[in-house]
Amino acid sequence: MTKNTKVNAAIIIIGNEILSGRTQDTNTSTIALWLNSIGVIVQEVSVIPDIEKTIIHKVTELRKLNDYVFTTGGIGPTHDDITAESISKAFNIKYEIHKEAFKILEAYYKPGEFNEGRQKMVWMPKEAKLILNPTSGAPGFSVENVFCLPGVPSILKSMLGGLKNEIVGGEPILSYTISLRTVESEIARELTKVQENNKDVEIGSYPFFQAGKLGVSIVIRSEDQTKIDTCNSQILNFVKEKKLEVVSR
Amino acid sequence: MTKNTKVNAAIIIIGNEILSGRTQDTNTSTIALWLNSIGVIVQEVSVIPDIEKTIIHKVTELRKLNDYVFTTGGIGPTHDDITAESISKAFNIKYEIHKEAFKILEAYYKPGEFNEGRQKMVWMPKEAKLILNPTSGAPGFSVENVFCLPGVPSILKSMLGGLKNEIVGGEPILSYTISLRTVESEIARELTKVQENNKDVEIGSYPFFQAGKLGVSIVIRSEDQTKIDTCNSQILNFVKEKKLEVVSR
Repeated sequence: MTKNTKVNAAIIIIGNEILSGRTQDTNTSTIALWLNSIGVIVQEVSVIPDIEKTIIHKVTELRKLNDYVFTTGGIGPTHDDITAESISKAFNIKYEIHKEAFKILEAYYKPGEFNEGRQKMVWMPKEAKLILNPTSGAPGFSVENVFCLPGVPSILKSMLGGLKNEIVGGEPILSYTISLRTVESEIARELTKVQENNKDVEIGSYPFFQAGKLGVSIVIRSEDQTKIDTCNSQILNFVKEKKLEVVSR
Repeated sequence: MTKNTKVNAAIIIIGNEILSGRTQDTNTSTIALWLNSIGVIVQEVSVIPDIEKTIIHKVTELRKLNDYVFTTGGIGPTHDDITAESISKAFNIKYEIHKEAFKILEAYYKPGEFNEGRQKMVWMPKEAKLILNPTSGAPGFSVENVFCLPGVPSILKSMLGGLKNEIVGGEPILSYTISLRTVESEIARELTKVQENNKDVEIGSYPFFQAGKLGVSIVIRSEDQTKIDTCNSQILNFVKEKKLEVVSR
């Protein structure tokens, strides 16, 4: 039923503002949810500073280990935007004005507004494939299996749809959540048994505190709905035996 | 004036729920802001799944490259909580019941409530140093330069204060932000010059969109207030020349 080949990705968040704690990264969650929906599993996320050799090293490492790599950040017009040049070096490709990107931005801005600062955004690895930007003009780009997106969350989000035909995923990862009015330690033994009986299903247990009450969300993930259903019914068995309240399912 | 030795840290976020996009990580920002305040710079953040060999590999790699490593997640009572056992293996230390942790939790719970599930939380690397938990009893622990904290953000936050005497930082990283009513491309050239004139100061440029208006926040970071002041006055020079509006400073 399910394909045996898993399709994997890594995300590289480029930006000192995340490492300093000043900015809360939200792009990981956006990209991961989207990738999951098209059958790609995120294996690793790495947050690194705006340092050329670090970007080159991390991209080179992760693109060998994963089917796809997504970077966010560092493709704007200022001095700290060094992703495009770093990617050129990582692939040993000339860093130059991308004619198609130039035309897009020349048409996007009013006459006289396509200034020196903005022109920096059309410098890319030679023959990079553009990722169109419906929000603010300046495109992202891809080279082989590395896709470079901006750091601004709303712009990044608007660009993912355009990538759909570029990414070939496996079976979509399905997920089912049961939330119980209990604490983790009350169900740890039973849940371990369910996991042991269903080794190829991912079962996660997450405590929560909502409206003044403790609870546990159990998340079952697999590409195979039948396997999720089997786990679910085994969980509902111990829930019934232990007379636990189901908060939501 | 400033110490030449930088003190560095890496953060390892352990948890499938972050990689799937289901949960938004907020612990990075909490830990990074706290570390900055005591003079420790976060070099890298890595988000990895609940897989033993991945945890062992990443901890072993990053603890050699950094003064300190912080892990979050995977120290609860359920089957997917494998951080303590993985750390034991990474250090080749026996994984066993930690007597001090046992006493703490035995006293914390009502008689009869310290059940099998909860007892899993006192299994740790032999002679690990405890990190006390003022919120919910179950302690974290450290081995050499690796500090293992829980994943629940409010609990993690409450435990950082207790670590203050364990972490020896350098000069605190100072930060100053000027927000301008402009766009990045308008100031890119001038800001590049300021960065070139002040190579050992970190200057970041971050576009924002607030109350329907675009703006740019310039963040200056250094251990040395004089250097920040110098950058700041150079920035205010071009702000004045270009007649830009200062939104906040």
